[in-house]
Amino acid sequence: MRDALTLAASLIGARLDAAIADLPPSTVRDAMAYASAGGKRLRGFLVLESARLHGIGPDMAVQAAAAIEALHAYSLIHDDLPAMDNDDLRRGLPTVHVKWDEATAILAGDALQTLAFELLARDDAAPTIAARLDLVSSLAIAAGGRGMVLGQALDIAAETASAPLTLDQITALQAGKTGALIGWSACAGARMASADTGPLHDYAAALGLAFQIADDILDVEGDAAKAGKRLQKDAAAGKATFVSLLGLDAARARARALCDTACAALAPYGPEAGTLRETARFVISRDM
Amino acid sequence: MRDALTLAASLIGARLDAAIADLPPSTVRDAMAYASAGGKRLRGFLVLESARLHGIGPDMAVQAAAAIEALHAYSLIHDDLPAMDNDDLRRGLPTVHVKWDEATAILAGDALQTLAFELLARDDAAPTIAARLDLVSSLAIAAGGRGMVLGQALDIAAETASAPLTLDQITALQAGKTGALIGWSACAGARMASADTGPLHDYAAALGLAFQIADDILDVEGDAAKAGKRLQKDAAAGKATFVSLLGLDAARARARALCDTACAALAPYGPEAGTLRETARFVISRDM
Repeated sequence: MRDALTLAASLIGARLDAAIADLPPSTVRDAMAYASAGGKRLRGFLVLESARLHGIGPDMAVQAAAAIEALHAYSLIHDDLPAMDNDDLRRGLPTVHVKWDEATAILAGDALQTLAFELLARDDAAPTIAARLDLVSSLAIAAGGRGMVLGQALDIAAETASAPLTLDQITALQAGKTGALIGWSACAGARMASADTGPLHDYAAALGLAFQIADDILDVEGDAAKAGKRLQKDAAAGKATFVSLLGLDAARARARALCDTACAALAPYGPEAGTLRETARFVISRDM
Repeated sequence: MRDALTLAASLIGARLDAAIADLPPSTVRDAMAYASAGGKRLRGFLVLESARLHGIGPDMAVQAAAAIEALHAYSLIHDDLPAMDNDDLRRGLPTVHVKWDEATAILAGDALQTLAFELLARDDAAPTIAARLDLVSSLAIAAGGRGMVLGQALDIAAETASAPLTLDQITALQAGKTGALIGWSACAGARMASADTGPLHDYAAALGLAFQIADDILDVEGDAAKAGKRLQKDAAAGKATFVSLLGLDAARARARALCDTACAALAPYGPEAGTLRETARFVISRDM
């Protein structure tokens, strides 16, 4: 599955590079290309794999995979800004506002969000016009004020709240902040084929939460050089996380249980969904 | 036409308010509502009028009108940020980052862009799925790295350039920065009806440039209290504008000539396009 992920990452990266290179030259275009290079491409990989399960090949699915990676890159650029998480390092390199400036980072993020919708609306993004419009509509719901941005808003509110968040509150926050895009990615293949998104939705709900718990564990235990970003930030900021609330052992056990739930949700797809099951196991064992 | 604009503004504002009120509560949602209140709603009005010319009533067209006003509001919030134009006043009120903070302003802008695409993808945004997808696709092209954001990127580059911009360069910059959204708005009605966008495209190209020249004149001659924003900023920043390059009289003459070009482009619509012609005259005579 790691080979498949590497192969997918290169396919998706090439598609995204081509889409950005197609824009008129500007510093903002350079920053868009810089910020969307690298990364695991986990979200794009989920798109390709869920598409494969519905008989849609990578030639078509790569468009939506590139779209979700553009959207993810936008969210990282804006998250890293001084007014947000104030991060100077991402994937082992200076963040966009450090390498250029804040104005360039704001605009590059803005244009990457726009590019995501542009890619989904193109002729080759899904077999039917209805499926393409469904991809657009569902991504807008996942990314905006009822999905990812809502999670980020709750995260900001938590920083100035009088009490640390409860487990329920963190779960709700993460369902938006990281869960919404992971959920969209896993369901994208079913949407392309105008099929039922139920099983993939359940898979992604468990996977997204497992992903965040693994992220919290990584923040405590990880190797910053390998992760390519600063770690131990949550504890330093006094932020409640799954690890601070559950303890390391219980957090690990919860992530494993969620991985089992995610795999079980794929039962309707049978052995064909083996790669998505491996992806769930990869997500809770990753060290980067 | 001013009465029609006022009526349209109230219809569009109500639709946008309802869409934002439908989001889960958060500070970011409050900031989205605050930033998208008020304004002339010129872009939304162009959507309603171009739709009417193609037999599409306000009940349907208000969805796309609300979408372009959401997108416009996002661009203003991000433009006003300290790292961009650093404006503390907009429509006579504190800007979002002044009233709340920069993080809230970044996220509110991000979510308003997403909302624009969500509104266009909804069932009632155009008579056919194909027309809705066309609205999405064309807005993504107008708003992103080959339209509005490109114009903003060129604007930022001009600030650190060794020589002031030439007339051709300013024209290209403004075609992106303000022209792209005005062009989308004027063509939206034709897109909804899957009709030829040619005449409205020509109308909007002249209108958008006239709008920007009028804005530059307003910056020199206007009343800050009426405009609701700080004026004389361009001269203070030593920025080249249509007024600094042409002089006031020639700038006024150019705006009038563009207004005539815009009106002439509407010939295929006959007297039915009277309101759009009045809109062009309003744009070059406005004092706010």
